[in-house]
Formats: sequence, structure tokens, C-alpha cells
Amino acid sequence: MEKIPILKMGHFLLITIQVDMHDRLVMALQEDLTTRVVADQAKGVLIDISCLEVVDSFIGRMLANIAAMTRMLGAEIVVVGMRPAVAITIVELGLSLETVRTALSVDKGMALLTSLLKTPVEADSHEHPPE
Amino acid sequence: MEKIPILKMGHFLLITIQVDMHDRLVMALQEDLTTRVVADQAKGVLIDISCLEVVDSFIGRMLANIAAMTRMLGAEIVVVGMRPAVAITIVELGLSLETVRTALSVDKGMALLTSLLKTPVEADSHEHPPE
Repeated sequence: MEKIPILKMGHFLLITIQVDMHDRLVMALQEDLTTRVVADQAKGVLIDISCLEVVDSFIGRMLANIAAMTRMLGAEIVVVGMRPAVAITIVELGLSLETVRTALSVDKGMALLTSLLKTPVEADSHEHPPE
Repeated sequence: MEKIPILKMGHFLLITIQVDMHDRLVMALQEDLTTRVVADQAKGVLIDISCLEVVDSFIGRMLANIAAMTRMLGAEIVVVGMRPAVAITIVELGLSLETVRTALSVDKGMALLTSLLKTPVEADSHEHPPE
């Protein structure tokens, strides 16, 4: 089962990361996701990383790359379920995740994506969703 | 990352199976899920098995058990994304999954759950969602 499923929910796609990411899996995910964004005409992508207990520069780069790719195809990306320890590590590692929006839960991430779709003006790229 | 994430989406919970299930993981999932159904007062549970390429009697029993447990707690369960080959195997193995509702996609599963919530009268337990 070396494949990360991409679930379609309305105009959005949902991915949950629950296995250790390695090079080949990341490449496959990037290809699958970009194909699906185009095929399903998705307006937004949610990536749940609540299972990630640790994060390294590899994962950080992966998230930034995926965000850049999907944005190129006209879809917004929101990372949801980040653990406090992961946020600490990301800052301590000096990873630049400014292009990646975050939300605390899938519900809030969907609300954020929906609000982004309603406002064609580009919002501040590292804002957090309203509580 | 030996844990299957349970995502909350409105009144529903979503689980995607993407790793090989073994005894301990199934036990942990059952415990997590029943706890979350109560804590989040969930009305329905969606289990995505689009990653499952093969199915055996262990997985079949797991799905039936989880369905029975969540129903006991007042939540409906819908299995989504079943592959044709898996459906064939389930019937050929003679597994009794009559208590488990199915839908082709997450969107259709959510529509099915929403329609079930609107009709308090118990519908036929092995019906399929309208196309």
C-alpha cells in the first residue's frame, strides 16, 4: 500500500500523511496530486499532518514544494493538524514555510479555503484562520 | 507513526486506511474511534478503503466490528472507495458485510450520511446510495 490516497470533498482534495515519507513516495504524491488538481478542477488542497510527531527539513521542503506546485495550478493549499512540537521544530530549524497556510483542524482549514475562494484579492500569505 | 488519524469534519469523522492493518493497530483504532465518537458527538463515520488492494477475513471482520461499535454509540458508518476487486473478494470469501453501508466516494458517503440523519426511520441496512 505504497500510495497516499487523495480524497475528493466537494471542490477540495484531502490528503492525510500517516506513513513515513521517503523520496519515492513524495515524488509519487506530487505527481498524483498535481494530476488530480487538474482532473478534478480542485480549488483547494488540505494536507493533514496530525500524525507527524517529528519534522525535518525534508518534510518541510516537501510541503513548500507541494504548496508551490498546487498554487501554480490555481489551487490553494492549507496544512492542518500541526502539533505544537512540530511548529517549534519548524521555527527552530529555520524552515521557510511562509508560503504554506495553516489551520488547526480540517473544519477550520475548509472554512479558510472557502473564505479564500470568496475573496479574489490575494490575502496575506501567512495569515492564520480566525478562531 | 503507528496510529491512524481520525479527522473531524462537521458532524462526521473520517478515517483513511493506508497502512497494513494488524491486530494491535485495529485495537487502537477501535478504541480511538469509539472515544472520539463520544467526545465529538459524531453522527456518522466515513472509512476510506481506496488504498486497500486486497481484503481478507480479518479486514472484513474489522469493518463489521467497527460498524457495530459505532452504531451502538449512535453513529452511522459508511465505507467509501471500495475497489471492484475488493468487492469481488468479499463476496467470494462469503464475508457477511450486510451491516456495513458503502458509497463510491467520500462526497457520496457524506451525502448518504446526511440523508440518513434526516430520516429517523431506520433505512434498509444494506442499501446503496442513489447515484
